Amino acid sequence: MRGLIMDLDGTLVDSVYAHVVAWQQAFAEVGLPIDGFRIHRRFGMSGELLARTAAAEAGHPIDLEEGERLQRRHGELYRELATVRRPLTGAVELLRRLRDGSVPHAIATSGRGPEIAASLEALGVDRTRAVVVERGDVRRAKPEPDIFEACAAKLALPASECLVAGDAIWDVVAARRAGMLCVGVLGGGYGEDELVRAGAFRVYETPGDLAAELDVLGLLSRP
Amino acid sequence: MRGLIMDLDGTLVDSVYAHVVAWQQAFAEVGLPIDGFRIHRRFGMSGELLARTAAAEAGHPIDLEEGERLQRRHGELYRELATVRRPLTGAVELLRRLRDGSVPHAIATSGRGPEIAASLEALGVDRTRAVVVERGDVRRAKPEPDIFEACAAKLALPASECLVAGDAIWDVVAARRAGMLCVGVLGGGYGEDELVRAGAFRVYETPGDLAAELDVLGLLSRP
Repeated sequence: MRGLIMDLDGTLVDSVYAHVVAWQQAFAEVGLPIDGFRIHRRFGMSGELLARTAAAEAGHPIDLEEGERLQRRHGELYRELATVRRPLTGAVELLRRLRDGSVPHAIATSGRGPEIAASLEALGVDRTRAVVVERGDVRRAKPEPDIFEACAAKLALPASECLVAGDAIWDVVAARRAGMLCVGVLGGGYGEDELVRAGAFRVYETPGDLAAELDVLGLLSRP
Repeated sequence: MRGLIMDLDGTLVDSVYAHVVAWQQAFAEVGLPIDGFRIHRRFGMSGELLARTAAAEAGHPIDLEEGERLQRRHGELYRELATVRRPLTGAVELLRRLRDGSVPHAIATSGRGPEIAASLEALGVDRTRAVVVERGDVRRAKPEPDIFEACAAKLALPASECLVAGDAIWDVVAARRAGMLCVGVLGGGYGEDELVRAGAFRVYETPGDLAAELDVLGLLSRP
């Protein structure tokens, strides 16, 4: 394994719970009362897919335009709610070890725009030097494999030599569709069994626990 | 099975995600950066136990007094955040069917004071007529069995004839310690496997799905 591709929200940054609350408020404002757990278990998909499928499951199908309005409103509410962006335990250390060890790595996120900038800043990632692929860079978001495939292309690695780390089953499914192995982390609030059932071959509590096993995963020789 | 004892937050009311964000903010204000998933997976315990164990796991042990301050601040932040209290899908219908069918039932919660009042109001529960046992009514909170035992006593039923419904593994563990069977619901964001592994013999998505199986569970004859 030569490269590591990491999801952002829930994998490196502790943002999932605020995102869920912001989505709930955005849905509630347009009269769509949607259970929080339904939003939670969709988070990590593209915003358009989350909005459309959560609304449909709750029995209130919405059109594209309404979906876009909901996404914009979600972004506003999220920025009001999450004034401080916090890295998950060990995330900054994980990124430092990858840089120090010259391990090819990339960040792959279904997020967009200002939310990503604030998260990268909290993680100490210099976007001019790091490989970051976001929703707007590809045609289809997770669970489609496009974002991970774009990362591999930028790292100039074949899919078989890329390992994906993610917190949501959409990361695991997208990784498998891209022909990549995947490990899970618990920072997004999925249970370990859900990630294993989706196809993660190992699950870590935090990015710090993943950082401590980079050698076991074949990404970094123990110094 | 003759009586149903239900947890409140995450089981009947859609409040877990806002509670997690409020706890995170309360911890952050006193310089304790605690991962959201660690709070989430402790929610449903008493507030004092949640504060103490989450802080300890993050490497910042706190004393009783600091724990109480955190709980008060969490309550304030939660009330600011969750201005509208929303029943989970089918929760109002579940309670109505229990009343209409004269099934003995109780609500058992680790919460306190004003949060509970707002939740009961959203559920249409008249506290002067319903059986409600809260944190302050017993010496020890979940995962100790005291709250469920107090409910059974108020319903005048033996433990073996009470079924517990909860969203957190602390509900399942407390039910087993009380000698009661337990079913899970997904409204609190735990995965199905986590609830089954804790000992839930069946897991429903929503309170509405539980309401539709009251006959299967032996609580209500199909009309």
